This record gives sequence, C-alpha cells and structure tokens, in this order.
Amino acid sequence: MIPKFLWVALWGATSSVAVAGSDLSSQAEPAAATANPAPLFANEMQRASVFVDRMMEAGVVVPVPKDPGGGYTHEQHKQNFKAINLAGQLYRNTGEQQYSDYVRDVLLAYAELYPTLGEHPARKNSQGSGRIFWQVLNDAMWMVDSIQGYEAVRESLSEADRKNIDDNVFRKAAAFLSTGSPVTFSKIHNHATWATAGVGMTGYVLGDKELVDIALLGLDKSGKTGFLRQTDLLFSPDGYYTEGPYYQRFALKPFMIFAGAIEKNDPSRKIYEHRDGILLKALRSTIQLTYDGYFLPFNDAIRDKSLKTNELYNGVAIAYSKTRDPGLLSIAEWQGRTILTDDGLLLANDLAAGKARPFPFKSLLFSDGPEGNKGAVAVLRQGDSTSGQALVAKNSSQGMGHGHFDKLNWQYYDNGNEIVTDYGAARFLNVESKFGGRYLPENETWAKQTIAHNSLVVDEKSHFDGDAKAGDKLSPQQRFFSAKPGSQISSATMTGAYPGVNFTRTLALLNVEGLGQPLVADVLRVKSETAHKYDLPMHYSGHITRVGFDLKSSVDARPVLGTANGYQHLWVDATGKPDNAQNAFVTWILDDRFYTARWIPQVTGEAILAESGANDPQFNLRREPVIIQRATDSKDAVFASILEAHGSYDGAEERTVASDSQIKSIRHQQAGSADLLMIEALSGEKSVLAISYDADPMKTHRALIGGEQINWTGYAAHVKLGRATK
Amino acid sequence: MIPKFLWVALWGATSSVAVAGSDLSSQAEPAAATANPAPLFANEMQRASVFVDRMMEAGVVVPVPKDPGGGYTHEQHKQNFKAINLAGQLYRNTGEQQYSDYVRDVLLAYAELYPTLGEHPARKNSQGSGRIFWQVLNDAMWMVDSIQGYEAVRESLSEADRKNIDDNVFRKAAAFLSTGSPVTFSKIHNHATWATAGVGMTGYVLGDKELVDIALLGLDKSGKTGFLRQTDLLFSPDGYYTEGPYYQRFALKPFMIFAGAIEKNDPSRKIYEHRDGILLKALRSTIQLTYDGYFLPFNDAIRDKSLKTNELYNGVAIAYSKTRDPGLLSIAEWQGRTILTDDGLLLANDLAAGKARPFPFKSLLFSDGPEGNKGAVAVLRQGDSTSGQALVAKNSSQGMGHGHFDKLNWQYYDNGNEIVTDYGAARFLNVESKFGGRYLPENETWAKQTIAHNSLVVDEKSHFDGDAKAGDKLSPQQRFFSAKPGSQISSATMTGAYPGVNFTRTLALLNVEGLGQPLVADVLRVKSETAHKYDLPMHYSGHITRVGFDLKSSVDARPVLGTANGYQHLWVDATGKPDNAQNAFVTWILDDRFYTARWIPQVTGEAILAESGANDPQFNLRREPVIIQRATDSKDAVFASILEAHGSYDGAEERTVASDSQIKSIRHQQAGSADLLMIEALSGEKSVLAISYDADPMKTHRALIGGEQINWTGYAAHVKLGRATK
Repeated sequence: MIPKFLWVALWGATSSVAVAGSDLSSQAEPAAATANPAPLFANEMQRASVFVDRMMEAGVVVPVPKDPGGGYTHEQHKQNFKAINLAGQLYRNTGEQQYSDYVRDVLLAYAELYPTLGEHPARKNSQGSGRIFWQVLNDAMWMVDSIQGYEAVRESLSEADRKNIDDNVFRKAAAFLSTGSPVTFSKIHNHATWATAGVGMTGYVLGDKELVDIALLGLDKSGKTGFLRQTDLLFSPDGYYTEGPYYQRFALKPFMIFAGAIEKNDPSRKIYEHRDGILLKALRSTIQLTYDGYFLPFNDAIRDKSLKTNELYNGVAIAYSKTRDPGLLSIAEWQGRTILTDDGLLLANDLAAGKARPFPFKSLLFSDGPEGNKGAVAVLRQGDSTSGQALVAKNSSQGMGHGHFDKLNWQYYDNGNEIVTDYGAARFLNVESKFGGRYLPENETWAKQTIAHNSLVVDEKSHFDGDAKAGDKLSPQQRFFSAKPGSQISSATMTGAYPGVNFTRTLALLNVEGLGQPLVADVLRVKSETAHKYDLPMHYSGHITRVGFDLKSSVDARPVLGTANGYQHLWVDATGKPDNAQNAFVTWILDDRFYTARWIPQVTGEAILAESGANDPQFNLRREPVIIQRATDSKDAVFASILEAHGSYDGAEERTVASDSQIKSIRHQQAGSADLLMIEALSGEKSVLAISYDADPMKTHRALIGGEQINWTGYAAHVKLGRATK
Repeated sequence: MIPKFLWVALWGATSSVAVAGSDLSSQAEPAAATANPAPLFANEMQRASVFVDRMMEAGVVVPVPKDPGGGYTHEQHKQNFKAINLAGQLYRNTGEQQYSDYVRDVLLAYAELYPTLGEHPARKNSQGSGRIFWQVLNDAMWMVDSIQGYEAVRESLSEADRKNIDDNVFRKAAAFLSTGSPVTFSKIHNHATWATAGVGMTGYVLGDKELVDIALLGLDKSGKTGFLRQTDLLFSPDGYYTEGPYYQRFALKPFMIFAGAIEKNDPSRKIYEHRDGILLKALRSTIQLTYDGYFLPFNDAIRDKSLKTNELYNGVAIAYSKTRDPGLLSIAEWQGRTILTDDGLLLANDLAAGKARPFPFKSLLFSDGPEGNKGAVAVLRQGDSTSGQALVAKNSSQGMGHGHFDKLNWQYYDNGNEIVTDYGAARFLNVESKFGGRYLPENETWAKQTIAHNSLVVDEKSHFDGDAKAGDKLSPQQRFFSAKPGSQISSATMTGAYPGVNFTRTLALLNVEGLGQPLVADVLRVKSETAHKYDLPMHYSGHITRVGFDLKSSVDARPVLGTANGYQHLWVDATGKPDNAQNAFVTWILDDRFYTARWIPQVTGEAILAESGANDPQFNLRREPVIIQRATDSKDAVFASILEAHGSYDGAEERTVASDSQIKSIRHQQAGSADLLMIEALSGEKSVLAISYDADPMKTHRALIGGEQINWTGYAAHVKLGRATK
C-alpha cells in the first residue's frame, strides 16, 4: 500500500514535476493523476520510500573505494547513487524535507571524499580506472543517476552546500570523466555514452555550457566524437546497436535520459527527431530483440537479463510520453515497474485507464552498421513472443570488443524455451565468489569462440582466427529476407572469416502440413578451392531420447575434442557415421515437447555428440550438449539440415504423443547454381525449399526434383509438391 | 465458459447424483449447487464435454492391442477408458442421451474384442501380461475407470446390450483380473489394489457378491489377501505407504474410489472408520509428503509428478466430502481441478463460497510399516511449503520392488528448489522414443544404488549389497524426533545394511542468529570393528562458484570413479584433500541464492567432485553433480557437515549480496558417548548441536567445549554459546 504521507504529498507534486525528462508533462492531467496515483506509480513511490528510508536509517555511508564489482565498497557506492536518485525524486514528488536533507548529506560526504581519490586500487588497468569504482564506466553511471537526484534538490540547498557539492563533486567528477579520461570520453562506444550523458546533464544542472558542448560534440567540439556522433554511429538506421541486444539495453539508458535532458533544456535541437527519430527506433528494436521478455543472448550477454531492468523502465516511460504507443503500455505492464518522473506518472495512469495494447512483436530485419550495410540480424517469428517460435539469424558484424566470432550463427526459440542456444557470456555478473564477478577467462577461451556457437568452423579455428579487430573490418552480406507467413526465409553470405573460404547460409521457418509447429530448414553452402575440415555445431537444450545412428561412445574415459579455440572445452560423449537422412537424426525432449534435428550426412564426415566443460578446473562453464556435423578434406560442401518440433509429454496426465520424428526424410539436390532441399513428412506431405541465390525478385526459376517439375520466383521460396502416394 | 446445454441439464442432474461415490450427496444442497455450478465444477464439465465430444467425433476406435506404454494402441485404450468414465459422468450430470449411447457403443466394441484377447504381444513376461494393455496393471486401471462410466449408464441400456457388456466385457475382465491373474490379485501391493478395486466395483455394479467378496477378502475369502488386508498392511499407522509418496499417490486412487463404492453399497462396513480412519490419514500424508506441490521423489519416483494428478483430484474431493476440512479446499484450489461426482460438486461449491483455508503443512514424522515400527520418514519444515525449507530424512524401510538402497538418506528444499537432491527413477514415463517409456536399465545400475543417494556407502557396495529382499527384512530405527521451532532434530540408526557396520545419523534444521535462513547440521556416526572405505555423497543442484580447497582436476581426460554399484556412472571432475573446516567447503549458486556445504575433513580421506553420466551410451541419465566425502581404512568414524543458504543474486538489479559463506568454522568434539558439533558464524554467534544418544527425555547432560560448559536435556539439543569476542 501507498503510505499516507504520499497521498497528501502528491497533491503538491505537480508544480515541481516539470523538472523531469518529458516535454509532455503539461499533458499528464496532474491533479487527477496525483490525487489518486495509478497503482504502478504508487507502488514505485512506495518501493522508493522503503528503499530510501532504509538507507536513511543506515545513515550516510560513503566508504573509501577498495573493492571490484560485487565487493562491499562497490555495492555501497551503487546503493548510494540509487539512493541519491530516488531520494531526489521522492522530494520532488512529496516535498518532504527529509529527502532533500538526505541527498545533501550524502553528497556532502562525497564532496569530502572525491577530491582525495586517485586511481582505484582494484582497477584492471590504469587507463580504464575509475575513482569511486574499479572502472570508469561505473563512475559515469554514478554520475548519471546522482545528477538527476541532485537536480531535484539543488534549489533547496544553502548556497554554501550547493557550491561545495557543485565544485567538489560534480565539477570534479565531470572533469575526470571528460578531460581526465579523454580516451574513454572520445570513444564511439556505450562507455562514452554514459560519460557524455553524465557530463552533459551535469552541464545543464550547473549551467555550465562548456560541459554541455563537449558532451554533445566531443572534447574538441568538432562533433567527430561526443553524444550526437554516438547517436549517428552506434545505431544502424533500424536502431540496432552493433554490440547486440544485451549491451543495447545497457547503452539505451544514458541515450534516453540525456535525450530527455537535452529536449528539456535545448528543445530547438529536436533531439528525438535527430536522424529520423533514431533514439525511439532504438528503444523499439531493443524490445523486439527479446523472446519471452529476455534479450537474445548473443555476444557478451548475461542470459538472465530481461526487459525487467532499470534501463528499460526509463526507456519505455520516456518513449511512451513521446509516442503514446499503447504497445509500450503492455511492456510496462509486463515489467510491473516504471520511473518516478512525470513520464512514469503518465504511463502509469494510461495503463490504469486500460489503454494498453499488445506490443507488436513481428518478423523483422535489423540492419547493422551506421549506414545499415554491415550485415543484419534477422528475426523470424510465428505465434506470440512467449510461447511461439522465433528463429534468429545473426548475420551482423563483429560488434567490437563484446562481439563473438559467430558469423551467420543462429538460435531457435519455441514453447517458451531456447531450443538452439547461444552460450552468451562466461561471467557471473557481480558474483564476488566467482572470479570477483568479472568476465571469466573462459569468456575468451570458450564463449567467444566459433565452436561455442552454431556456425561454421574451418580447420578448428575461429572466425578471423579470433582477432576481433580483423572481425570489425568485415561483415556478412544479408542477401535475402522474406517474412511471408508460412515460408519465412533469411539468407546471408560471409566472406573473409576464413582465407579462401566463403559460406552462404539460408535459414527458413516453414509451415509443413501435418506438423504441429513450423519447421526450421538450414542450408549452408561452403565454397573453397582448397580442402579443409569443416565443423558445424548445433548447441541445443534438452535430454536425448533417441539417436538414429550407431554410436561409438566414450563410456569409461571421456576425451577432449581438441586443443585450442574452444575445442579444448568440449568433452566427446560419442561419435557416429550416419549414412543417410533416415538415420542422421537426434531426438530430444525439453519440458513437454520433443525436437528432432535431422541432416544429410557428409560423405567424408562423421557426427560428434559432445558437451562443454572440459579443461575447466574452476567449474566456470555451464555444461551443455552439442551436435557437431563434421566434414573432413572437403572443398565445396553443403550442410542441409532441419529442426522439427513434435509431439507432447504430459506428466500429470501421463500422456505422450508423437515422441518420435514426424519427418520421413529430407533430400538435398543441386540444380545448376540452385540448392533444393526436399522435406517429406510421415503424413506424405512433400515440399521443397528452393534457393536460386539470384537477387532478381522477378526472375522465375525451374528445376526437377523427385520426378516433379517445380517453379519459383526470386531468391528463394518454399514450394509444395504433390502428395506422395504411399 | 460452460455450454448452454449444461445450465439446463444440470437442473435435472440432482436426482441421478446418488450413484456417485459419496454418502453425503444428500447434503450437497443440490438445487442451489447445480442451478449455478461453481466455476471449478463448471470448468470440469466443460473440459469433460470438450474431450468426450472430440472422442465421439472421432468415432469408436477400439484397436487390437499391440503397443507397449506410450505406443498407439496403449494410448488409445487409455483414451477410451477416460472417455467411458467421463461420458458416463456427463450423462449422469446432464441426462444427455448421446453420452449414454457413446458409452454403450464403445463398450459393445470391447464386448466384441475382449473375448478374443490372449496375452499381450508387448508383454514383459507372461505372468504380468494384460489383455488390453502390455501389463495387467493397466487392465485393472482400465476397469476402475470404465466400470464407473458403465455404472452411470447401465440402467439406461437395453437388456440385450446390458447383458452383452456385463458378460463379455466386465465379467470376463473381472475373471481375468482375479482368478485369471491370481499372483497379482493376491499381492499386498498397489497392483493388487487396482485389481481388487476394479473387480469389487464390478461386483457391486453387476450385483455379483462373489466378485465383491474375493475383492475384499482375497480369492480364498480368508481375508489374508484382498482389499481390506491391503488397507491393513500397505499403510503405516500414520498413513505412510511403504513404497513412498510417488506410489502412494498412485495407490491412493483405487483405495479411495473403491472405499467410496463400499461405503455406498455396504455402509455397515464403515470402511472410512476402518483401522482408525487409515484411508483419510493416507490422503493427508500424501499431501504432506510434497514440496511446492511436488511429491518427494525418493524411491522409483517420476520427478514431475505433483498434486495436479487425477488420483489426487479424486482423493481430495472424496476426502473433503467426508471431513469438510477447509485445508483440502486450498489444495483443490492449487490443483484447479476436481471430479464430476457430487463430491466434486460439493468441493467446488464450498471453494467458491470462500471456505478454503491454507493446508497445514508442518514438520511431521511418518512411521513406516503396518505396525509403525519399520523406520520412518521425518519431514522438518520452516516457512511455507513453496518457498520455505523442508529437510527430509528418509529413515524408512526398503519399500519393496520400487525401493532404493538409501537408508538414512536425506534431501533438502529451500527457496522453491530441491537443493540436496534425490535422483528419483531412471525412466521417461510413456515416452516411446526412450526405451518404450519403461524403466531404463540405469534405474537398476544407478538410480537404486546407494552412491546415487545422500547416504553412507561402505567399500563401494550398496546397502544390503543391492538385494531388495534382504533390504525388506531390515529397517532403520527412528531414535529421536523433535519439531521444536528453531531447533528441529531427527535421528535414526541403521544396522545390517552392511555386515558388522552400523551408522547413526542426526539431521537438524537450526536457526542461527545472523543467518537469513536456517542451517542444516548433519552428524553421521559410523561404528565398525573392522576397517572399511567410507563414501558419503551429497548430490546437489546448482553451479559451483567457489571451492575452499586445492583441486586436482581431470581437465583433459575424465576418468570414471569405479566399476560397479553405480560408481561406473560417475565421472570424476576433481579430487582434493581439504585439511580443516575452514577450507573444506564448496559454494554454489541456484537461482537467486547461494549455498555452502562445509564439513570436517576425514583424516584418512579426500573429497571427490563428480558428475553422473559415465557408462551411459544411450544418454539415459541426467547429468548432475555430487560431492563425496571419502574416508579410507577407517573403523569408527564421524562425518560432521553443515549446509548453509546465504546471500542473494538479483540479475535485474545487478545486485549481489553475501555470495560467500557466512560461517567462520565448524568443529566436532566427542564428549564421552556424546557428539558435539559447534558452529561459529562470521557474526561471532556460536552454538552447538549436542547429541547424547540417550533416549531418556528427562536426563540432563553436560559437556565442555571451546572452554565453555554446556548443558542439555534428552537425546539432542541446540545450545547457544556466549558470543565470541573477536
């Protein structure tokens, strides 16, 4: 429940709401809204007051910096900037003096501490060292939150206190983050976004135009770096952030909050219209890049991160007050949270008024790169975003330091689960008892390596031989994308990940009659003039129920698959040599559904069933299964596979249906330069995924398969054949 | 929503309700109830009509038996008896002729098929072969459901149809299940309960006293076998079923349903009063033996089985109409289901009337054996049954063929998770693609073996050397049980599991000041006059974050721990020799909480970190971690350990607290015949678990530890010491 003092206090809140981020505050019907605040907002006030009251009871605690992420001083300073921020907002919404006093007292303590600080004792390297925290990034985050809390109370302070805090906390911190950390500040990178946002917002609050200018235009004010340049370069025209969804979520907060401040103080800049509304596009893309609310975990992603995160509470509220998009209300409803600004109040009231509509999750192509020409991420969806299907083709560029070597990688979601998986980052974020909460060594030796993904590995080396700088220079080419219902297709080519080898992967989400769920088809064509060893891993989630081919199992001593590039982390459970598409399959169960991966075996190859966790003396890795298709001594090669969901398992009713594959067979055929993948279901239904690789959307292609003539138009299509006579 | 025809039909339903199981039907306020049926009942009617209508549309399908569990004919015949049962109940509740006709038509098809049936082609052995199903048990289940459906429509059939179905289906099936399957029918075992229930209910419906008599008193009517004898021997005085909760759940249905029929047709037997109301006790015990609604998975249990199961929908409704216990209503609410008898109607109405109260889950001791002297299962609880703690001490007897060799085994639940785990059965129930859905070979080679549990293994052999018959002859002795809040303790001794070795285990759930959750203490005292190798495994769920001692890791080739008795299924990840209680610990994370297991190392021993999954070429086993304390060449020995839950991890807030152990150290000391386990928290709090092993509840004991004199009374107690001066 909302405590009594809030009911009273909120009456007086409206006049002071204007300092918050939105230019629409005047439309927030304040009286009605604040006289009887909507539950979402009231709960947020309640949550904030509980937290801040607890912090106030504990008294002002501003320890000398000592610990890395997860350690005591790290967490205390994080608690402090959260408290400064929320106490400031509580003061603005309630007018209660105690909150203003608390913000003042905490900041006065920082005013004593900050000038005494040098490099952090737990820094990883002096370049990136913060003052309050072990890395400069955390100092910037401290500033972004703290300056907002300070803004809310600054006018209420004595001139002496105000000057002391201005000079000894925020000016010094702004100087440290800008001229004092020129390398970080001038990056085109989310670390720089946090820094520029903190410095720029400080400039607005202190009325220091210099700080605002260098934040917006870079230290030399040329505009070659700084916040505006970041909005130009860090997002693609589709609002995709090159590091991937996890860091897009993270980067979004300073973008949205600083934009709000710019809009308020400098409306003539029309920041939200900048670059065709890129910031709002970015917010929408961030939401689209989720399944069941969780971010697609490719690149250095912590897998448990969902839309229920402070960055998105801010982003959704700010974006809603701009757009009034009712789909954003349903996201806020799922989040169950908002922020204490007038944007949050507006959102909470409209949600309570029943204005929410489902957010339109749909199949989309997200181009990568500032000009949108550095590959793309394709998301093919069917059904809803919580229990339906989502096929993700990661055809985007390297994504800088947090990128993985996973060109043309894919993931698959179904029935609320990630079926074909991405390991994400090897890190237990802020868990002190696990390597201090930092990235684990296995993030480099496993999580980033190609074999840890669902992409082509040549000669047991990772893409670009594991060199991120080389990777940033080259991108895949997205060649085709179709969201046609029932036959959705994405195709891309990667050249240069390996010298002399290029590969084109076509992934399709196809509806096949007689199957309960759509089927994934995967045709990977490799071209090389010299012979190589090819490995195509598929990491999956589930427990094997049937393997179609004979296995040579490592039953009483478990060998390691290789020696480097991630191979040293794979235990070999079994190997086998399936000889046709009838027996080249593995079936597994996950929750109440079965899955069968089926492929056309390589003539020169074998299949390897393995599990992560070898050479891991500290138990840093999760242990997860993988199926590897291997081709040895091959030049050109085609890997043709399907993934099928089938049947159901009901433990309560003790009823199981179709626990075995519903596919009779698959067959690959090359017709000129085209690839044909024929899929025959047990029901007798036959269809073909036909790929011409011809970009001309008007051109019609013909081919003969299974004695039948098929025609299709354009790059690729799903063609039904006559029903087999059984 | 409930279809219109039901609203009308239900008006007429009351007169025909009497045939259902309960003698309280007259009290079900029929008019009010059926005029506006409560949602739970209306939904059940709706669910039934949807299912039966689908079956009716598909037409009568009674295939010649062919497949084992999970196969087509198996599932179809299961669907059929479900349809016969529900259609009959729909007819009784709605009076709609179509339902009566459908039941008739299906049973007429069986009347043609049944006389032609011999042994089932997929039988495991001729003795247990069914006619309709691969095992006789399923035939009995078919009969229990079908006879209820038949009862509801029988009077409405033509004499010719009635005679045909009586003679060619139910009399023949009853003959097959009784005189035709004398071995099964005469067992004291749940298979026999299903058979006697089916035969006895058929006797009542057909007015065949002979069938009723042999069902109640056994084939020779001596009362040495049969249903009544089963109620005397299969449950302990506390209503515990010796095979364990999973099979107790399964066995309960025929007990409750047949009892209902006996009560209706033969009220003078006062079946529910029989043996001090054992059947209702059994129902309550079944519910108490769950955590978060899931059955404690010891012995041959399928782990995904919860209270949401048909047996309990029947049991809860029948028991509620007897007892009107409002706690049962909250169970029904959690189940979200009920049955279509007047018992179900009464329950649904009272639930809708807001009469539900929380079911009183509490710490309980469940004696085992007909006289309650064959050991016990102790459940120590704190907090609620969904997120609180539950410490389970399995001190019960072998439990016949489905029992595991796990004397004095334990499990621990916390925060909604099973922390110290029991593997349950190695079986994918009814999953055709996994060994036909039958018990896997690894159920014998792993799941039943002692090393697969959290109990003492001597010389790498299982209890009773893996001989279940030998195990059934001997039981543990429960020596002490105290549910005193904050210091709950259970202690038991096992003699004869190994020649010349006996062991006493004291498990305690203790509140220690400064810790967020209670702490588990485990003192296992082994006595032997000859030297042995002792292994004490602890199977846990979670991901290791810190190990306190140096590890010798199997990083690049993973050996197997042993050659037999389950050891062949364990991969060795690492071994180490912790030398004191400061470094003898392992910390892991599960969901948002951390756990640290800490123990006093064996002088002659080592610690082994291993994982299940070796010698498993078919991928039949789940891969789960285990910590093994090993003592070599030891006679008497004491294993003193604690398990501590600590800290929190919040991925959304990126906040982690206390990811490392909050315990400074533990210390074991023997004082005369007593064992003292001192626990010191980082906060400085010190306390002692003191065990005198003296049954006299009045006797006071004294001991000196850490320079302090402590006193306690009785078998065991938790004694606080003065706070350490740090």
